[in-house]
Order: sequence, then C-alpha cells, then structure tokens
Amino acid sequence: MGRLLFNPGPTEVREEVLKAQVKPMISHRGKEFQTLYEGIIEKTKRVLNTKNHVVIFTSSATGVMEGTIRNCVKERALGTACGSFSERWFKLVGECDKEGDVISVEWGQAIKPEMIDEKLKTGKYDTILVTYNETSTGVLNPIPEIGEVMKKYPDVIFAVDAVSAMVGAPLKIEEWGIDVVFASVQKCFALPPGLTVTVISEKAYERAKTVKGRGHYFDFVAYIKKYEESKETPATPAVSLLYAIDFQLDRILNEGIENRIKKHQEMSKISQEWAIKREFGMFPEKGYWSPTVSVINNPKGYSIPDLNKQLEAKGYRIANGYGKLKDITFRIGHMGDLTPQETKGLFEAIDEIWGLK
Amino acid sequence: MGRLLFNPGPTEVREEVLKAQVKPMISHRGKEFQTLYEGIIEKTKRVLNTKNHVVIFTSSATGVMEGTIRNCVKERALGTACGSFSERWFKLVGECDKEGDVISVEWGQAIKPEMIDEKLKTGKYDTILVTYNETSTGVLNPIPEIGEVMKKYPDVIFAVDAVSAMVGAPLKIEEWGIDVVFASVQKCFALPPGLTVTVISEKAYERAKTVKGRGHYFDFVAYIKKYEESKETPATPAVSLLYAIDFQLDRILNEGIENRIKKHQEMSKISQEWAIKREFGMFPEKGYWSPTVSVINNPKGYSIPDLNKQLEAKGYRIANGYGKLKDITFRIGHMGDLTPQETKGLFEAIDEIWGLK
Repeated sequence: MGRLLFNPGPTEVREEVLKAQVKPMISHRGKEFQTLYEGIIEKTKRVLNTKNHVVIFTSSATGVMEGTIRNCVKERALGTACGSFSERWFKLVGECDKEGDVISVEWGQAIKPEMIDEKLKTGKYDTILVTYNETSTGVLNPIPEIGEVMKKYPDVIFAVDAVSAMVGAPLKIEEWGIDVVFASVQKCFALPPGLTVTVISEKAYERAKTVKGRGHYFDFVAYIKKYEESKETPATPAVSLLYAIDFQLDRILNEGIENRIKKHQEMSKISQEWAIKREFGMFPEKGYWSPTVSVINNPKGYSIPDLNKQLEAKGYRIANGYGKLKDITFRIGHMGDLTPQETKGLFEAIDEIWGLK
Repeated sequence: MGRLLFNPGPTEVREEVLKAQVKPMISHRGKEFQTLYEGIIEKTKRVLNTKNHVVIFTSSATGVMEGTIRNCVKERALGTACGSFSERWFKLVGECDKEGDVISVEWGQAIKPEMIDEKLKTGKYDTILVTYNETSTGVLNPIPEIGEVMKKYPDVIFAVDAVSAMVGAPLKIEEWGIDVVFASVQKCFALPPGLTVTVISEKAYERAKTVKGRGHYFDFVAYIKKYEESKETPATPAVSLLYAIDFQLDRILNEGIENRIKKHQEMSKISQEWAIKREFGMFPEKGYWSPTVSVINNPKGYSIPDLNKQLEAKGYRIANGYGKLKDITFRIGHMGDLTPQETKGLFEAIDEIWGLK
C-alpha cells in the first residue's frame, strides 16, 4: 500500500517495528517472559520519567478507562466532557453501574482548572476523570494547571486519559500529581494497537484495594502484585505485541523523549501555520491546540473522502472530522514516528490537490 | 531458538502465521477494516459451524470469562470447579461483586451432568459456568451430556470456557445448547495470544440487554450491535493479530475442521499410550481424558525443569504440572498446528533423556 497514515490513530508504524512482532512464541510463565516484561516496564519508566507502578494491559485504552472507574470510584466520579472521547469516558461511569456528574463544555473548548475546583469544593467526588488530549476536537487540556488545583484535594484520585498525548506531549506524572494515566500504543508510541500503557500511583493502588467489584482483567491490584511477585501478568498478554513495544521503547530512548516531544511540536506548528495561512483556521480554542492532532476547520466544505482518494495516490491518508464535526473539520494526526519532513510533504500534497498554491 | 512448544498454551505458532502479522496498519474505522473483520467473523462461523453471534475481543480469555459474568449473571451464578481455571472462573463471580455457588470435585475428576441437575433444580441460578477442557488437570468435561440436562432449564444461560478445546475438540454449539463459548487463540488456533474468539447465542444476547453494570470493554450488546451496524468493533482492536487470525482461519478451513479434530485425537492417543506403556499413568479420571492436553503422572518424581533443559537441546519444550500438581504431574499440550509426527518425536526425545527405551 505504501502510504503514510496521518490518522489520529492508528498512526504509521515503521516496517522494522512491525517486523519486531515476528519472533517465536514463549510461555508467559517463566524466565524468558519475565526478562522481556521487566525490561519493558523499566524502559517505560525511563521514557515517562516516573517511579509509579507501570502495567501493560492487553486491551485498547477503552478497557483501561473502564478499569480506572472500576478500580478508583468508590462513591461518586466527576467527569469532564469536551469532545467525544471525554464524553464516552464519563458515560462509562454509568455503564459500570456507578454514580457521577459531569462538567461539559462546547466541543473545541478546554476544561479549565476553576471549573474543577468549583465542583470538587462540594466534597462529593472521590475520583476525577480528565482527558489530556481530546482526539475528536484537537484540544490539549491544561493538565499542569488542573494538577495545581488537585493539590487541594488529596483524597481525590486524579485520573488522566493520555491516549493521544503520551510520548507526544509533555507529561510530568508525579509533578502534576496524576494518579492514573494511560495511553494505547497505536498513537504516539507508533505501534500496532492492542496494548495500553498504564501508570498507577501508590495512592491509586491503595484506593483500588478498598473498592469492591474491580473484577479481574483490569484489576490494578492483581497486576501490581503479580509484577512484584514474579514480573508476570495475571492474564496471558499479547506476547508478539510485547516484542514490538520492547523494540520501540529502545527506539524512543535512542531518539530521546525530549526530542520526540519537540518533533511533535514542530509537526503541529507546520499544521497550524498551514491552516492559518490557507485561511482554514484551527477548530479548537486558542491556547489549547494539540501538539499531536490538528483539527482544522473546513470552511469551504471540501470532501475529505475525495481528498483521501487523491492523497492515496500520493502516499498519504488523513481523517475526517469526528462525530458531529465530520464535515466541518478534518483531522491530521502527526504522531509517533512521523517526521516534520513527512508532514510538510503531506501539506504540499493537499495544496496540490486543492489547488491552493 | 528453533524448538517446538508443547506447552498447553501458548502453543507453537508456525513462522508463516507469525509473519502474517506484518502488514501496514489500517484504520479500524472504514472499508478496509470492515472487509477484514467481516471476513474473520464469517470464516469463524464456518470453522465452528455456528449461526450464533461471533465477537473477537482483544484480550485474553480471562477478560471474556469476566465479561460472561458481567453480561449474563443477574441474580446468582453456579460455578463448577474441577481444577485451577474452573476454580478461578467461579472466583471471578465474587470479584465482579456478584453472587454464586460452586460445585467442586477433586482435581482430576470430571463434572457430571447429574451434579448440575441437582443444583439447578433449586431454581436459584440464572447462569452456569462450565469449563470444557480443564487445562490444569487434563479433564475434558462432558459438555454434550451437560447440554442434555440444560434443556430442562431454558432460562439458565449455559456458558462454556472452551479455551483449550475450541478447534481441537468436537464442539457443537447449537446442538449442545451452549449460550456463551469462548477460546483464546494461543491454544488450538495456534496463534500468538491477544484475541479471544467468543460465540454468543440470541438468548445470551437478550439476557445481556437486561443486566446492569456490564461495562463497555466486554459488553456483548455493544459489540453485537456495532458489528450489525458497521462490521466494526466498539473499541480499537489489535489489527496485526487480526491479520494473523484471518490468515490462520484460511489454513484451518483448508485443513478441514474434522481433520484438525482428528489430528488432536491422534496426538492425544500417542501421549496416552506412551504414559500407560511407560507406567506413568494418566492423571485424570478415566473416560475424560483431554484430546488437547495430556496430564501425565510423575510417579518417579522426575524433575521437569531438568527435562526441559535437555529437551531444549533436542528442540522441544513441555510444561510442569499446574499449581498443586506441579511436581506430581507434567503436561503435554498437543495442540493447534503440531502434528502426530512431531508428538512422536517429542516422546522419543523424552525416552532418550530418561533412558526409558
């Protein structure tokens, strides 16, 4: 096929990373596996500069969104909805038969720290769910500022969906006071989907121990204990995907996490400047533009499926707007192993197709 | 490494199957994916000769064991414990904060239909959990006979863990009245782990619609609806593992499911005859010996880790006994793409190492 995926996930996976999946199977009980898995956990801690517990779940991030609710919410959760994925996370609270309320802002707006402060003041909530980078709107929520507010509420679990942000946007887990943060690997990790990297603070671990009905597959306590006992996972993991993440973590360490984040900034600058110069305009509120997913207005109502058909021939693919933004925006995921050079190439191709030069 | 995995999962995966994972990523929203996924579902239905709903979850079977409880159990579940995995399935009922009771037999014994009849007569249960092939003891439970009993209880959901049985042992889903049956793919499907094939009857689907707190990641209703609407999955699936199962289903259809089941019978016969001839003896109750996993007594107390070290050099690996059977049994998983010829080779190697010829 030979096209570059500028989808906001699944993103482009380099051939050498795909090939890293191909190794003979090993038992997930025993020395060989333990060495592999411990290596992955330790490298992830280095990449994320964290001392918290790290678990790799075999699931999409949706599973860990649910797991976070099942492990952390005792009485009542506070959701924060600013787009499709944050809305869905809150919806999961009810689907898990738990109670909650939600702060909602217009799609394209960011969640502000003072909104959260006002709600938490009531003392009704034991867990707050915040989406770092809302993939449907291209908004990067102000997690460091929200983290400042959270310092006033030491009993509340601060859970962050960093699906399309981790290893693409800055993330200071302990400094920002984040208790649970996770990302599926088909975004900025640039891997095939199927795993979710999850970082759990001691506080969240202690909370989970007190919550009933956590189940098993996403039980934080069981995973942390099993790792401490034997460097294994309670359930059988996706071994070939672990081979790939092991390989990719080495590549990320080699690139340097600071460089990787800077590269995402550069790619987003290219996208933003293009959107402004060509008078499309960016969809999200100013000051909150994502470094990993640019959601660009589509004021002239171009057909994105038609664009994709023509991009295909030039070796690229992008995404239409999400949900209710389907026709009025389009989305460029500039993530993972994609480069500023490739991003420039994409926009040159779009210019040519739309005759914008 | 070049050794054949006779573990009772993960089993040996052929190199061409491993390589099928390596294809460029595609979006899980769109035509390309829909064609892939629909093909997999349709081929699975052909392989299993079923018209029920088929869902491929990105998870180990443990996730679907939990999902079955969350989707099906309304008031009270009946578990059936005859080894480690069936015990754990029942334990999950409590971990999901649901109620249940359990029929327990000695490890090595089978669950008999009359035991179930006696419990179900009380009318207390809405779901029954039965393990077809108990991987820890090598017992194949009499699912067809249990299915006969279940006909008397049309309101009870009949859920079957077929993890180490599906496409290795006979399985007549509709004829035996099974409502939920699942298997992870690293057993008789001979694939890398990370997916669980799940077959759900209309009755189980209707039941799920009435159960609260199903969550999302294993919500049968959401998966079935999404498939009917768009041939997609609600959460991002492990695309590279789907490439592999698509490839492997073609291989299985090509082999013929009857031939594949016959091959498993032949491999188990080789194992059983060896165990008897060499005066080790089979661990499970007579009449219930598994066609996929032979659990063999170890009366002379041979060290299985030592055996494995020597087998390694000859290109094989087997497993020690499970849990409390660790030292008194050993386990040969003769599953998936392994052949009778390779099974003979394994026993010749064991004979040589232990000087049994």
